[in-house]
Amino acid sequence: MTAPTRRPRKLAAAAARTVAELYDIANQLRIDSVEATTAAASGHPTSCASMAEIMAVLFFRIMRFNPSTPHAPENDVFVLSKGHAAPILYAAWAEAGAFPRERLLTLRQFGSDLEGHPTPRLPFVDVATGSLGQGLSAAIGIAFDARLAGIDRRTFVVLGDGESAEGSVWEAAELAPRLSVGSLCATIDVNRLGQSQPTMLEWEMDVYRRRWEAFGWQALVVDGHDVAALIDAYDKAARTTDRPAVILARTVKGKGLLGVEGKENEHGKPLPPTEAKQAVAALREKLHGAHGPWEPVRPITRVSSAKTRQLTTASAPPYAIGGKPVAPRKAFGDALAALAGSDERLVAIDGDVENSTYTEFFQKAAPQRFIEGYIAEQNMVGIAMGLAARGRVPFVATFGAFFSRAYDFVRMACIGHNAIKLAGTHVGVSIGQDGPSQMALEDLATMCAPPDMTVLYPADATSAWRATELAASHPGPFYLRLSRPEAPILYGADERFEIGRCKVVRQHGDDRVVVVAAGVTLFEAISAHDTLARDGIHVRVIDLFSVRPVDRDALVEAARACGGRVVTVEDHYAHGGIGDTVLASLSGTRAVVHKLAVREIPRSGKPAELLDHYGISARSIIEAVRTMMGERGQ
Amino acid sequence: MTAPTRRPRKLAAAAARTVAELYDIANQLRIDSVEATTAAASGHPTSCASMAEIMAVLFFRIMRFNPSTPHAPENDVFVLSKGHAAPILYAAWAEAGAFPRERLLTLRQFGSDLEGHPTPRLPFVDVATGSLGQGLSAAIGIAFDARLAGIDRRTFVVLGDGESAEGSVWEAAELAPRLSVGSLCATIDVNRLGQSQPTMLEWEMDVYRRRWEAFGWQALVVDGHDVAALIDAYDKAARTTDRPAVILARTVKGKGLLGVEGKENEHGKPLPPTEAKQAVAALREKLHGAHGPWEPVRPITRVSSAKTRQLTTASAPPYAIGGKPVAPRKAFGDALAALAGSDERLVAIDGDVENSTYTEFFQKAAPQRFIEGYIAEQNMVGIAMGLAARGRVPFVATFGAFFSRAYDFVRMACIGHNAIKLAGTHVGVSIGQDGPSQMALEDLATMCAPPDMTVLYPADATSAWRATELAASHPGPFYLRLSRPEAPILYGADERFEIGRCKVVRQHGDDRVVVVAAGVTLFEAISAHDTLARDGIHVRVIDLFSVRPVDRDALVEAARACGGRVVTVEDHYAHGGIGDTVLASLSGTRAVVHKLAVREIPRSGKPAELLDHYGISARSIIEAVRTMMGERGQ
Repeated sequence: MTAPTRRPRKLAAAAARTVAELYDIANQLRIDSVEATTAAASGHPTSCASMAEIMAVLFFRIMRFNPSTPHAPENDVFVLSKGHAAPILYAAWAEAGAFPRERLLTLRQFGSDLEGHPTPRLPFVDVATGSLGQGLSAAIGIAFDARLAGIDRRTFVVLGDGESAEGSVWEAAELAPRLSVGSLCATIDVNRLGQSQPTMLEWEMDVYRRRWEAFGWQALVVDGHDVAALIDAYDKAARTTDRPAVILARTVKGKGLLGVEGKENEHGKPLPPTEAKQAVAALREKLHGAHGPWEPVRPITRVSSAKTRQLTTASAPPYAIGGKPVAPRKAFGDALAALAGSDERLVAIDGDVENSTYTEFFQKAAPQRFIEGYIAEQNMVGIAMGLAARGRVPFVATFGAFFSRAYDFVRMACIGHNAIKLAGTHVGVSIGQDGPSQMALEDLATMCAPPDMTVLYPADATSAWRATELAASHPGPFYLRLSRPEAPILYGADERFEIGRCKVVRQHGDDRVVVVAAGVTLFEAISAHDTLARDGIHVRVIDLFSVRPVDRDALVEAARACGGRVVTVEDHYAHGGIGDTVLASLSGTRAVVHKLAVREIPRSGKPAELLDHYGISARSIIEAVRTMMGERGQ
Repeated sequence: MTAPTRRPRKLAAAAARTVAELYDIANQLRIDSVEATTAAASGHPTSCASMAEIMAVLFFRIMRFNPSTPHAPENDVFVLSKGHAAPILYAAWAEAGAFPRERLLTLRQFGSDLEGHPTPRLPFVDVATGSLGQGLSAAIGIAFDARLAGIDRRTFVVLGDGESAEGSVWEAAELAPRLSVGSLCATIDVNRLGQSQPTMLEWEMDVYRRRWEAFGWQALVVDGHDVAALIDAYDKAARTTDRPAVILARTVKGKGLLGVEGKENEHGKPLPPTEAKQAVAALREKLHGAHGPWEPVRPITRVSSAKTRQLTTASAPPYAIGGKPVAPRKAFGDALAALAGSDERLVAIDGDVENSTYTEFFQKAAPQRFIEGYIAEQNMVGIAMGLAARGRVPFVATFGAFFSRAYDFVRMACIGHNAIKLAGTHVGVSIGQDGPSQMALEDLATMCAPPDMTVLYPADATSAWRATELAASHPGPFYLRLSRPEAPILYGADERFEIGRCKVVRQHGDDRVVVVAAGVTLFEAISAHDTLARDGIHVRVIDLFSVRPVDRDALVEAARACGGRVVTVEDHYAHGGIGDTVLASLSGTRAVVHKLAVREIPRSGKPAELLDHYGISARSIIEAVRTMMGERGQ
């Protein structure tokens, strides 16, 4: 793939500054960072001070952007991976005129969008940072979006040296050179000091360089306080378009701050008011008077990325009730491939299991929008965060169990409201012989926890197809729980599925117990229903489908209709899954819920053996129903 | 630190084999892998075949071990990081005489310990593998244990090339050279093919070499099917004791297997019976007759690592009721430091936040048993898995939010029953201004999910001290949820705390509602209690303390005593936390539970502001109590 044609540098809203001006700006950013953190009585001024020249050079010499429309697709993008340096990020945007400088003093106050770590509540922030080691992955996603869209935009990301110990950074580092994102430029602020002690590599700049070069990057070592050297390095990086560049900037923590420059044990500590005043006075003395105050540019207008547009598929789900059984994961693959053609925003990322998750169908349909993420789940989710921030609809697929690898990224995506779409296959003991390491058995507990996450768990191919469409068209983060085994087709193509709505699949005027199931256990519940019906015992069977949000009204109604007798059955551990969700929904109704779930670490075996052994098969459901009826009378 | 004196090679149970014999053994291992996976009709024979010579050389030439006591501390240790190659691991142990070869044909059958991926149900397995990229970290833990104990044992680990894309591998790679574990020897089986396609680097052996060297390892590139070359490389590695070594073995996937050698799309596919027979026949033809069958060695006796010994601290918790408030996280640090002296098995690992988690006290007390893990949480937990497997009591501390980074490791530690001890600090909105990225708000959902995990959530310093002792003496995996703010001392030094037992902290003959709280919300509950009492409304207040297992009997009893009116209040999201745990406990009792929890993504602010705004302060409790009494009468 070829890089898009570079467009002239006409966008720079703040005209490129001279070296003297940039030194002034750097010190002004230091002043702002000190004043804001001292006012807040918390924050990380020394982590800001080390990167002041980097910020000055990037924002006021290198980057092309219009601060009044910070999210506009044509602007260069800046990601602050070392999110604890938020004050200097805010200061830079204030300096650029995005908002009045006075607002900096609201840092960390309740109600201020200038939070302790950046979140996309701010229009110039794409992804929430503060959990270290995530920004580079997000930046790849942002750069990849630009490449797909043919926009000549560059993406800049600044990392701390401490955070470059995170494995996720190396996942991003190894993949980026393979994605033709030469427009990506990372900077590592090597200020030598972590929170509690010196970093692993301190100032071993050559080791840094060798590592990044070995990972395929153009790596440039530079004095991070030398404005001219920084400009030179960034210019060099801009001329290299065949691979991403990393600027390894040797800096001093607390640089320029009286009394704390280069000192240990000054991480995350604001200067006390008196010291802050002295430090600011000293910084002011250094100003050449060469800089501003710049004219504020126009107020920010948030550019909508139209994330909520409803998608349609090329065709209805092609499965016939009672037809050949199809695995829900395969139906997901079918649907995703069908969606590929109808919406250019879709991107799929897989971790070398595309022949298990069936994203290989999408890969075939839209190869240019498929990212092979290899076996590196954190980076996959991080890239999706960046893509989502730019209005793409990124599906990330792997075994459900392995999203546990990327859970911190999922957590941060939810904090940042990045509408990532996760498709977790091979869930529960029903995967069979591969054993517990491959079984997602805690994914409902984890995925349902963050507010705003939507979790669907389709049982058959038709509902899996529809769930995939719902995920694609929903404006928030999403998890699809997709079973491995083939499943009978339960629903016709005209069946309507909605987020937050369950399906009553078996119903009778004389239902005595309601069985709430989902995925593979739905078929166990239906089987139990049939057996019990032969004995004249009627049970209502619900396909929960939407685990979060859950269809509380329908559950309450069904429980009431069945005398308050409820059995839940799930291929998931007992904590935080379907049973607990139903319990929470029925709280206050006096319904009695009998929860069937996996209650020990399972082992290898055939799917049917395991369902039965761990107490979530038709046999256990029948037993639970009979017990419950015995307890509470017929 | 100096490496322990090397001891003579007297332990080799299977006498060192000749090159011809080793080729025979390699092919025998191939035969076993093919036969077992074909019998199971699932599994990964091609991933076994590529590493047959590696296994033959390691097990029958390089490693010193007694197969009848595989877990004995003096044996060299082997970790199969690429867990899907389990059949060849089992075959090697059978070949060594650890169990009869016939048992290999029970692979993946329900009830057989020869599961799809290895677990410590088998006495020769330290940690469960199968989620890729974890074995190297565990091996570091095992090697570190040997160093601490002064045992001249070597640790070998084989990784796949695909899995070396996992960031966790690079976290392990960057740390190992700093830990004086020259006894550690990794091998990467570079067979070029992943599951769905070629790996990222295919056979770019020089890139592999440069990366590992840049990370500080002795890296040796070798033909992984050349027995003599492998022996030479492992001998070279043995002579390097100042840093760990990695053997980069260029291999062919499916090597030696008729019809599949070197082919794509043969990952995870057993040979059909006819093809298997032909492949086995071809392999048999290659045998020189130079090898065995070896005499089986004595049957395995599991060596107990005496994990359950009760610990005592040097002294009782030093906090006085009503005395100076102390943060629970600090009390954890105090207790851990006190325990350091009383038990040599304790190791602490921190991620550059030891001055926030207060493991710095332990670091001071027992510097040789403190590991600075830097900002790399996966590797920290992985090291702890290896340490726990060897009978150490490893505490890993960081912000609770950042254990989400290592959740897949936590999941696997639970599968492997490795008794890791996780101390998560800075939980909930009560951390204040740093904002949501630093707040653990889903950690109860995640940590309570795996069976056998114990979760304690102390509210004050005394209970935090006792919780730390309980964690140290408990034989299973453990999570301590530790609040950031200072808290009043509620309990005296003689108060007895137990896993699975709560505390009733306020009680009256006329209690109308029971409020279940924990951590910071306990003090809100007490404050609500006091306010309500002034109005003549009595509420019972429970300090849940033990979230998993939960004190069901006490909760049922309290709910009954209070007319079935229950309010839960937690500094955690609404899903999977204390409220849901209480709901599940009271299922069937007809109690009504009103759940107070954080229900949206929070923002920065002062702790008290946030507790109040997100509805978990005394004010909300009072409101909930009044509403509940209005609803259900007084």
